[in-house]
Amino acid sequence: MNRWIKRAALFAFSLVVAAAAADFASADEGMWLFSNPPVKQIKEKYGVEVSPELLDNLQKSCLKFANSGSASFVSSDGLILTNHHVGLSTVAGLSTKENDLVAKGFYAENYADELKCPGLKLIALQEIVDVTDKVEAATKDCKSFEEAEKTRADAIKKIETDAKAEKGMRCDVVPMYQGGQYHLYCYKEFTDVRLVFTPEESVGFFGGDPDNFGYPRYNLDITLFRAYENDKPYRPEHFLKWSEAGAKDGEFVLVSGHPARTNRFNTVADLQYQRDVYYPHMMSKYRRREVLYQAFSSFNDENKRRVATDLFKIQNSRKNRGGILLGLQTPALMQRKIDAENELRKLALEKNVVDLSAGDPWDNIAKTVSEWAPYYVAHDLFEGGEAVACTVMNRARAIVRYAVETSKPDAERSAGYKEIALEERRKELAETLKRDDADIEALKLGDNLSMLYELSRPAEGGRSLGAVLVPQATLDAIYDGKSPSARATDVVLNTKLGDSEYRKSLIDGGLDAVKASDDPAIKLALAIYPIASDLRDMYSKNVAEPLRQDYAKIAKARFAVYGDTIYPDATFTLRLTYGKVGGYTEDDGTVRPFETYVKGALDHAREHNFVDPFDLAQSWVDAEKEGRAPLDAPLNFVTDQDIIGGNSGSPCVNANGEVVGLVFDGNIQSLVLNFIFDEVQARAVLVHSTGIREALRTIYKVEKLADELGK
Amino acid sequence: MNRWIKRAALFAFSLVVAAAAADFASADEGMWLFSNPPVKQIKEKYGVEVSPELLDNLQKSCLKFANSGSASFVSSDGLILTNHHVGLSTVAGLSTKENDLVAKGFYAENYADELKCPGLKLIALQEIVDVTDKVEAATKDCKSFEEAEKTRADAIKKIETDAKAEKGMRCDVVPMYQGGQYHLYCYKEFTDVRLVFTPEESVGFFGGDPDNFGYPRYNLDITLFRAYENDKPYRPEHFLKWSEAGAKDGEFVLVSGHPARTNRFNTVADLQYQRDVYYPHMMSKYRRREVLYQAFSSFNDENKRRVATDLFKIQNSRKNRGGILLGLQTPALMQRKIDAENELRKLALEKNVVDLSAGDPWDNIAKTVSEWAPYYVAHDLFEGGEAVACTVMNRARAIVRYAVETSKPDAERSAGYKEIALEERRKELAETLKRDDADIEALKLGDNLSMLYELSRPAEGGRSLGAVLVPQATLDAIYDGKSPSARATDVVLNTKLGDSEYRKSLIDGGLDAVKASDDPAIKLALAIYPIASDLRDMYSKNVAEPLRQDYAKIAKARFAVYGDTIYPDATFTLRLTYGKVGGYTEDDGTVRPFETYVKGALDHAREHNFVDPFDLAQSWVDAEKEGRAPLDAPLNFVTDQDIIGGNSGSPCVNANGEVVGLVFDGNIQSLVLNFIFDEVQARAVLVHSTGIREALRTIYKVEKLADELGK
Repeated sequence: MNRWIKRAALFAFSLVVAAAAADFASADEGMWLFSNPPVKQIKEKYGVEVSPELLDNLQKSCLKFANSGSASFVSSDGLILTNHHVGLSTVAGLSTKENDLVAKGFYAENYADELKCPGLKLIALQEIVDVTDKVEAATKDCKSFEEAEKTRADAIKKIETDAKAEKGMRCDVVPMYQGGQYHLYCYKEFTDVRLVFTPEESVGFFGGDPDNFGYPRYNLDITLFRAYENDKPYRPEHFLKWSEAGAKDGEFVLVSGHPARTNRFNTVADLQYQRDVYYPHMMSKYRRREVLYQAFSSFNDENKRRVATDLFKIQNSRKNRGGILLGLQTPALMQRKIDAENELRKLALEKNVVDLSAGDPWDNIAKTVSEWAPYYVAHDLFEGGEAVACTVMNRARAIVRYAVETSKPDAERSAGYKEIALEERRKELAETLKRDDADIEALKLGDNLSMLYELSRPAEGGRSLGAVLVPQATLDAIYDGKSPSARATDVVLNTKLGDSEYRKSLIDGGLDAVKASDDPAIKLALAIYPIASDLRDMYSKNVAEPLRQDYAKIAKARFAVYGDTIYPDATFTLRLTYGKVGGYTEDDGTVRPFETYVKGALDHAREHNFVDPFDLAQSWVDAEKEGRAPLDAPLNFVTDQDIIGGNSGSPCVNANGEVVGLVFDGNIQSLVLNFIFDEVQARAVLVHSTGIREALRTIYKVEKLADELGK
Repeated sequence: MNRWIKRAALFAFSLVVAAAAADFASADEGMWLFSNPPVKQIKEKYGVEVSPELLDNLQKSCLKFANSGSASFVSSDGLILTNHHVGLSTVAGLSTKENDLVAKGFYAENYADELKCPGLKLIALQEIVDVTDKVEAATKDCKSFEEAEKTRADAIKKIETDAKAEKGMRCDVVPMYQGGQYHLYCYKEFTDVRLVFTPEESVGFFGGDPDNFGYPRYNLDITLFRAYENDKPYRPEHFLKWSEAGAKDGEFVLVSGHPARTNRFNTVADLQYQRDVYYPHMMSKYRRREVLYQAFSSFNDENKRRVATDLFKIQNSRKNRGGILLGLQTPALMQRKIDAENELRKLALEKNVVDLSAGDPWDNIAKTVSEWAPYYVAHDLFEGGEAVACTVMNRARAIVRYAVETSKPDAERSAGYKEIALEERRKELAETLKRDDADIEALKLGDNLSMLYELSRPAEGGRSLGAVLVPQATLDAIYDGKSPSARATDVVLNTKLGDSEYRKSLIDGGLDAVKASDDPAIKLALAIYPIASDLRDMYSKNVAEPLRQDYAKIAKARFAVYGDTIYPDATFTLRLTYGKVGGYTEDDGTVRPFETYVKGALDHAREHNFVDPFDLAQSWVDAEKEGRAPLDAPLNFVTDQDIIGGNSGSPCVNANGEVVGLVFDGNIQSLVLNFIFDEVQARAVLVHSTGIREALRTIYKVEKLADELGK
């Protein structure tokens, strides 16, 4: 029996749930703000004094990739460490068919060889200012949700603009504690970033989708860049030293990075909405796309290559969201959320610290999400654009939106389309349209049009999609009397949007030109626009703003009950987590060790006969053959850190602030960290600092670079 | 641009639709009854006189595999030709891990070497009798749908039993023309069938899922059996001769076999129900299972091997149903159905030949399906058992059903559970439970329990699944307070149903023993039983019987309007189709030739570097190397025959009744034949008679067998 459970564990895993909420009082929980670091908790649990200097250095050494991950300075010459998968799209952009850096890897011996990465922008957090009072003052007299939303947006824009002028830095106002507080985050920007080293994809992405979210792992998931200023290597005031010893079992560690999004403080009703409405739709969408790409891939290697990235992204999302959904479907976890909410509500009402002026915020949220539920799928398909998603239609939709918004007076436009922002919009629309190959484009569009057909049902006057009626005239314009696949082929083959002159004529011609266009992509985008627009307004007015206000009230009540020793949900801003290095035990009793070794990577490849995605690069095979591979060097390891997507590329440091590892994944049991913390089995998966240095030194023979780490 | 359309064609194919219904008057349409063969149509279109002797020989040479395909006698010594994929489960049953006949193939040099196939039963149609009057007489005074259904079932059982006693043959009453007629089909049975020859799977299933429903193709999709009687080769009175020349372009041909199911005569409302309710749910179910098996396969070769068959079946269904759904979403095709229905209704009402005594049958059907729609998914999940589908739960459900039925008086039981049938039921339940590996079993059950969770929504008192409320107490019993995957592991690990003694104790102990059981699989089956049972009754009373009566009325009206020159929908009974050999042109102008060659198989494998499923067997590679491969022999070809699933293994004969090919697939454009005929692009895909003979002779060097074909 044991044999199969082991196999199944990676799969239909079930979660070991710590029963008593009390266990979590001293748990390694929290994605803490640098403005409110958990120094007291760390001291109590680990006896470690984390100094303000260490935290300041850690904060300012950290970097954020625009929309995709974390990184840090690891040398005085501006060397930047991140994950292979965080840098992947940049490296792909530097590759050509003839010189495929993704496949071959890359190393620049000298500064002059380092490759400029066009468009890559990294930011480092320098300062945090609480601006809650300013934001709240602006909206306190607002009479409606609509007015509040508009007024707040304007106030935030003003705070940002003023701060930028004053500090000469990029400044973002970030809602924290679901609107309970507003913080101003001020960043130094790096726009000249160059590629220094990246391993072969078969090393950096070793194990591919099957190993993704798994452990033990064997990935050298690293890429090194360098920041430049005035064409010279940037010499940062703050960077991280490299640990000589590397991570050890049981050791106290800190991780600092940019977790993207959690739902820890969502109400139970909101989580149930996610469990019953949001995730089931997402999963169904991912599955249909995964099947589409898999089937397309199966024809030949060329097809496989062409959709490999899309397919992996979908598989990654499906696994990730599937893990969260399974967590939400686990009664014991949901019970913990119910218990916590009941306790908070009881205490808050007893202490009379809930603003009940507009009703009970928990009840309000339950009502808001349940009333929104029947509109959600239509919102995703129309306003989210999923019913027509493909590169051509994404651009067509943007052009139509631009034309409609700019036909209105400035005051009535959405934030991104006011005169002040228009230049940026126009630039985006004019940009070269990087279309997928036409067959892939038609494949995606056709499948998405089928999805709309399959999810809708015949109704009086058209087809219904949840509570939304798609009128027959709209359907006629969408499908043009054709089957979904025939319509997709028609749009993709006949659109002129690839022609920048034509796009320009539409952008300059405004709504009249767009309405007069006979381009099938534009006509399709126009067809879905009215429903998309209605749902956007509805969401903003009936959902986003009421939720914002009710969640802010709950956040304030939570502060009043529990004090400020709580952390806000992740919002893609810099956070600090603490915890320890340490393995775990699977449900079936399998022990997962705290670290793996370089030799394990070679063995893992052999077990799979070096078949893709286990086709470990020749450089590693050669190094082993020639006796120079650091076989006993630790390669990956795990910690019980509270991390989530976006933390990829986060540095992990020891009590001295020295790099001992680099976060690159979480195990499958960590996916529930989206909405609840667990340290029994949930683990961050990291590249070991020693594995990084030794692989550079002996496998890649780039000693100079290995020596630069931490210096 | 052309390059991509070609690639896309296999995929997001769209259908070239013949515009005018008039074109179809002389089309090669129809799955004709041997009791009403289209000799007149053939004579008119092809100038060929098909003699009664030819038809009689063809009919009696044909064989049916119990639930899976067609075959025919091709020698005077009882040699039987069918497809590799039709014989596959039989060959797998004869294989062991040490002697894997599926992988290696098999050939018996002498009768003594031929392998008995336990449980394999083939039947050959000997006689057709119209018994419509008898059946209708029985029900004409019935007062309710319920009474009519019961009375008819009893009358049919009596006709079958009497006929069997009289003729000494198996006799089945088959509803034709959707209940417009009832025919008695009398069969000779063959229960001693032995394996003679099967090629390697990599030949018989060359190209796997990617090539499935594709053309050009390169499959030797054949397996040869032999019928025995009294331990001697059976010498059939009727068998098919082998054509010396084989199929030629443009040649007139007949195909005789057992198409499983078409919906040609469904009303438009019924097709819309299928388009909007039935197929979307099916597709969504197939996609989630495909993703599940793909992900499981991706871990290692052993996993891949273990779910390969399940995965292919799902991919096959997904492609097949997806093709039908795309057809139903093609407005021009649906318009042809609307036009045809409008014409029939108009003429029938004008001629006053519609039985309107219980309302307009078209309107009735529209009402029936629309009222059933909100129950359909729950019916599939509960009564269809899909919410718990896996081998253990299938057996558990059968035991619970048996216990409940046998607790009732004989008269109140469902047909299969009356005393007369109980022995057979008990035997089935006692049979060894061939469980999947426990990890696969838990994987399937867990995913199915998740499906139930994802498709249902919170409702007052439980969760709703369409119009069905699943009460909280039922949910508690289904999930037992666990997540879907944890519950699945629990059931699969802890059930005792694998123990035949325990099963026997439940079967003998009746409902009391079943209710008292603490077996988790039995408890789960009991939990879903009440809803399953209610939906079964509801379907039978409110859907099946009303549809039967309304469709029978429409069928009679159709006879009255168009005479009896029409054919009934496929019902897995023997049918005759006519047409011609001939290639076709894809939407993008690509010409698909009428035949492919042996050399093409080797080239196709080379193009794909012999990677699975293009890893053509060594025997073919060796034959080519040694210069003995019949490189120029035609291997596969296409005809415009009106065929569908179940026709696999059907012989294709020329005007002289000689075998020129063997049906093994349809192209992707043929999938719409489910509900509408098309001869522009829809094609049957066949193995060429010359390819079969030459491959046996020169690649496999089994001359004796090659010589026996048709002799």
